[in-house]
Amino acid sequence: MKRLLDPDALRALARGCAVLGAGGGGDTYLTLLQALQATEDFGPARLVDVDELPEEALIMPCGGIGAPTVSIEKIENGDEGERLRDQLQHLTGRQVAALMAGEIGGGNGVLPVTWAARMGLPVVDADGMGRAFPEIPQVTMQLAGISPSPAVMTDERGNLVVFQAISGHWMERLERAAAVEFGGAAQSTEFSLTAAQARGATVRNSVSLAIRIGEAIMNAQGSPVSALIAEIGAFRLVTGKVSDVERHTTSGFVRGSVVIEGLGEDAGRLIRLELQNENLVALERGRVLASVPDLISVLDTETADAIATERIRYGQRVVVIAFGCDPVWRTEDGLALTGPRAFGYDFDYLPVEELAGARS
Amino acid sequence: MKRLLDPDALRALARGCAVLGAGGGGDTYLTLLQALQATEDFGPARLVDVDELPEEALIMPCGGIGAPTVSIEKIENGDEGERLRDQLQHLTGRQVAALMAGEIGGGNGVLPVTWAARMGLPVVDADGMGRAFPEIPQVTMQLAGISPSPAVMTDERGNLVVFQAISGHWMERLERAAAVEFGGAAQSTEFSLTAAQARGATVRNSVSLAIRIGEAIMNAQGSPVSALIAEIGAFRLVTGKVSDVERHTTSGFVRGSVVIEGLGEDAGRLIRLELQNENLVALERGRVLASVPDLISVLDTETADAIATERIRYGQRVVVIAFGCDPVWRTEDGLALTGPRAFGYDFDYLPVEELAGARS
Repeated sequence: MKRLLDPDALRALARGCAVLGAGGGGDTYLTLLQALQATEDFGPARLVDVDELPEEALIMPCGGIGAPTVSIEKIENGDEGERLRDQLQHLTGRQVAALMAGEIGGGNGVLPVTWAARMGLPVVDADGMGRAFPEIPQVTMQLAGISPSPAVMTDERGNLVVFQAISGHWMERLERAAAVEFGGAAQSTEFSLTAAQARGATVRNSVSLAIRIGEAIMNAQGSPVSALIAEIGAFRLVTGKVSDVERHTTSGFVRGSVVIEGLGEDAGRLIRLELQNENLVALERGRVLASVPDLISVLDTETADAIATERIRYGQRVVVIAFGCDPVWRTEDGLALTGPRAFGYDFDYLPVEELAGARS
Repeated sequence: MKRLLDPDALRALARGCAVLGAGGGGDTYLTLLQALQATEDFGPARLVDVDELPEEALIMPCGGIGAPTVSIEKIENGDEGERLRDQLQHLTGRQVAALMAGEIGGGNGVLPVTWAARMGLPVVDADGMGRAFPEIPQVTMQLAGISPSPAVMTDERGNLVVFQAISGHWMERLERAAAVEFGGAAQSTEFSLTAAQARGATVRNSVSLAIRIGEAIMNAQGSPVSALIAEIGAFRLVTGKVSDVERHTTSGFVRGSVVIEGLGEDAGRLIRLELQNENLVALERGRVLASVPDLISVLDTETADAIATERIRYGQRVVVIAFGCDPVWRTEDGLALTGPRAFGYDFDYLPVEELAGARS
């Protein structure tokens, strides 16, 4: 076991997941409350390395699917995780040995801890993105050729749907349609895998990274933003205030844009973020400052708390940062799945550090 | 065994199913071609009475779901039935002993014959509606308290979805959303039941009825329309021509209306049919001539072939008939599920024979 996910660790984890969410992955405030309650009721979940598990141990990736704007108003009832686990065990004829975040970003990085505490299962120190992405197949397991099937989805009412899709693309279409029908948000598992598979098919140590990011913010001696930037090697894109928010919930996603007007040394600058659940690109006068799959996060200027796309609003004082994604996303296959063109943009990806170097 | 469903029986069956479709249930021309081909390739399917099956024999109701306008352009690939059967057997741990039409109306009354011929299984002489209705839970099995779960849906590509819904209402919502995502039409099974259950929870002898209706049309000495009306005790609402068609495919249904302008002795009359896959109501100057759950069918004046809602077009010479539904739909529970108010109309159901009596 790496550590117990006690309340202090959870508070750091939630902060770190928010930063790694790049604006998405769902609200971390509500999921932190749920994790703290489950920890109080059932004791803390254990964080384990993939290498600690037997080769054939079954890992259940899991999380919420849908629009974060919905999930902050439509709350789970608590037994979704057990229902998904039971159905996955029934379908595979095997016991689930550990849970894993499908994406470490946002509330979806915290959710598995709640479920793991309730079930007495460990959480694996890994995830399928190293951040949050909007679509189901945008995970390292898809790159590694692991099947998304059988996927299981449930809602707070007790409905259950099992998907055997012919591809990740069809899994996304079918799960999204069901999530929309459930009211815009639901819980699901897909890409279940063995520990042996997980060793090469996940982003490793991402739970620990999220905790470390949270601790860097919470333990900062001076500016929390500066401490965070130093901890993860991020680039500051702009410091300013939110001057415009255009956001709508459609087809199971949050879509829209946010404009940040520079303040202080950045006075006169206008930065535009375009979003689909996550912040996809940061633009200044049409020039790309950063883009998927690199991470763009909007931080509260004072506290360095990352502000999710569904919480951002006019007048907030913010620092926008960007930092490099896991190297797997910078490969040809990785970019095909999560690069700018995968989201409909007509430009090629350039790493954030190159873009920053070109500006300075 | 009641009889073999040979090509002659299939041609009569398709004609009868079209009449019992009340405009819906899907195209019978394409499904007849498929049934004839399957019969040629695999031999004719057997038609059996529910009473011939062992009490615990598992019956798989099945059919297409979606908008008939779509299903005449988006054709099955042939193996959908086996895929549904295999999955249902896997889920229940039991062998499927016979197939049954979820609805006898339209192509959905013919489809099980094709699948049964391919699988070497019998078709049960019964169905869940005695006609066609647009929504999944509008079946006699729902009235009898049989669970719609587990339902299985598939498409021509090979995707497979299993639904464990908390109610018939949620089954309809989830299956409809998936069918829309599949392009507007898919194949499914729900409300699987034992032969013992089927004895009291289905409309019995409806396959035989459809064949008899088809034979009455095909063997008519004089007017096929008159022969059909005599065979089923129908009421002629109007003879005329189609003067307006308003039809759109939305949310997995065909919706719209058709206006028939009277000719000959009906000159000057205007009858309006409102439809949701099926013909729901027939109106004349705001007065109801017939409504769900009674059946309203539009017949070709010369051939008495029933014209489905997706095939109806300007200028067709037609006779509109209406006839009584199975008595189960005239009960309080039956009307709650399939009466005018279940489709959003603000009037109470009156049997077609009372409405006809009031007019004459």
